[in-house]
Amino acid sequence: MDQVIIGVDIGGTNTVIGMFDDDLSLIKKTSVPSKELSIKNPEQFIQSLALEINRFAAHQTIISVGVAVPGKVDGGLGIVELATNLSWENVELAKGLSDILQVPVRIEHDVRSYTIGEAMKGAGVGYDNIVCLTIGTGMAVGTIVNGQLIAGSDFLAGELGHDTVPGISNECACGKIGCLETVVSAPGISRLAAEKVSSNKGTLLRLVEGKITALDVYEASEKGDAAAKEIFDYVGNTLAQKLATVVYLLNPEVIIIGGGVAAAGDFLLNPIRKTLEVECPFYIADLNIKIGQLGDSAGLIGVAHLAKESIKL
Amino acid sequence: MDQVIIGVDIGGTNTVIGMFDDDLSLIKKTSVPSKELSIKNPEQFIQSLALEINRFAAHQTIISVGVAVPGKVDGGLGIVELATNLSWENVELAKGLSDILQVPVRIEHDVRSYTIGEAMKGAGVGYDNIVCLTIGTGMAVGTIVNGQLIAGSDFLAGELGHDTVPGISNECACGKIGCLETVVSAPGISRLAAEKVSSNKGTLLRLVEGKITALDVYEASEKGDAAAKEIFDYVGNTLAQKLATVVYLLNPEVIIIGGGVAAAGDFLLNPIRKTLEVECPFYIADLNIKIGQLGDSAGLIGVAHLAKESIKL
Repeated sequence: MDQVIIGVDIGGTNTVIGMFDDDLSLIKKTSVPSKELSIKNPEQFIQSLALEINRFAAHQTIISVGVAVPGKVDGGLGIVELATNLSWENVELAKGLSDILQVPVRIEHDVRSYTIGEAMKGAGVGYDNIVCLTIGTGMAVGTIVNGQLIAGSDFLAGELGHDTVPGISNECACGKIGCLETVVSAPGISRLAAEKVSSNKGTLLRLVEGKITALDVYEASEKGDAAAKEIFDYVGNTLAQKLATVVYLLNPEVIIIGGGVAAAGDFLLNPIRKTLEVECPFYIADLNIKIGQLGDSAGLIGVAHLAKESIKL
Repeated sequence: MDQVIIGVDIGGTNTVIGMFDDDLSLIKKTSVPSKELSIKNPEQFIQSLALEINRFAAHQTIISVGVAVPGKVDGGLGIVELATNLSWENVELAKGLSDILQVPVRIEHDVRSYTIGEAMKGAGVGYDNIVCLTIGTGMAVGTIVNGQLIAGSDFLAGELGHDTVPGISNECACGKIGCLETVVSAPGISRLAAEKVSSNKGTLLRLVEGKITALDVYEASEKGDAAAKEIFDYVGNTLAQKLATVVYLLNPEVIIIGGGVAAAGDFLLNPIRKTLEVECPFYIADLNIKIGQLGDSAGLIGVAHLAKESIKL
């Protein structure tokens, strides 16, 4: 039987399981509604996930497993300290899965997993100092400095989405006012687009059943809609004002934009670059700003990498 | 003869030389006007500094030397790539000194040296994730993550003093408008104080020969002067808005405030803490904010530490 590494990316809605060969090439992946795995009950979830993994890899020999988790993760101890969206607290995920599957299990924060993925196989290959953003439902940052992933003293590094932007008054899900991710996120872009629809008569942007998505804004931008492009200009500029501080502090070689909103490509990259040219004139010449290359497989690839490392330990 | 380690802290005005025993206790130090060492001519400076060091340690055996430099330093190669204030470019400082003194020489950026000093012997002892600010003529940051000093991909990490603050329109010496250090620095505090003198009739602050210093503002604060305290409140709050981003990004255990302006103590610490309590509610409980403990010896102690390390290599 072939030896494979399994990567798992737990999400509130779907949990994705990927199978990798020893070179960390993705062989296949599957997505399971997290509800079906009893996501809100960690003990049951671990049982269900193990079953699902064994079914998925029925004809292979699993040699190790990596799991990306949307929460506060102590990767060394293998414990999910807190995952608010999943209602988990102090879940011994690595040990629980390892006991059933009888292979080494590594776990890591989802954005940090994503960052490792892009660093090992994507837009970060060849760089030692990487800032990797995921912009989707929320926004966060993974940071690699001197080749080393930064978790912070209490596993809370990278929550830049909750840093306050002066002058912004939107309420955030976290309870604060004006968090960066109230603008720099898919819901933020939707809200800005809905505002444009009512204020701008000439725009191609339209509400469909009261809604408009970040993808709609991208498609309107592609068609040359000025109002749609203004939204990405505003989002990119707002983000870049914060990234400027990151650049001054860490002097990274590359900033990678990932997550669903990264599909906006140059509509988002151009205003980011333009603002950083003004804000960071001493850094910009040697600073690469790129869209991530692995899409939503980045997290899986990242944890698969960690899982592969764990075999050598 | 006693074996000693020499630390040197090069400044545009004065160059300080310190002598340390093997436990990195400071035995004595001396300050020499940098002009007398021909600071603007790096070849002559190296010769003069070596002479000065040999004179300073005439009755001891020097086993290694560390030098803190106000510029862009490649510590690994021992080269000062650029020190604008000294008019130096690509100076092989470590090799030059080592050739004359015949001992290992390590060099490092002055703020990073300061940070190592506070980490090894000062306010950072016992912490692995440290953000250390020096606030004096300018403002910069040294960062230690997982026990590792961050230099950045091009030795430009930590120049937070040149990050733009929204709404501030002061011109900075770097050519940009609104840099953080136009407010958060000794000259910034002097300027704010001069403005208070002309706008606030009740204040104890007074111009003496057209000037007022950060120290004057501190002394007026000590006497309970509201206008003086308002200056530190404004400076602390402005600084903390940027530090919030640093906290979200790196989740440090401790923020150390060093440099001459740190003498303001609680007048500066209190507004910083107050603003971070609002901006970083999820981090503040486990975040220590302290004044540095080593004063202007921190840089010397830091490079002495590097020098001691170099012997083991």
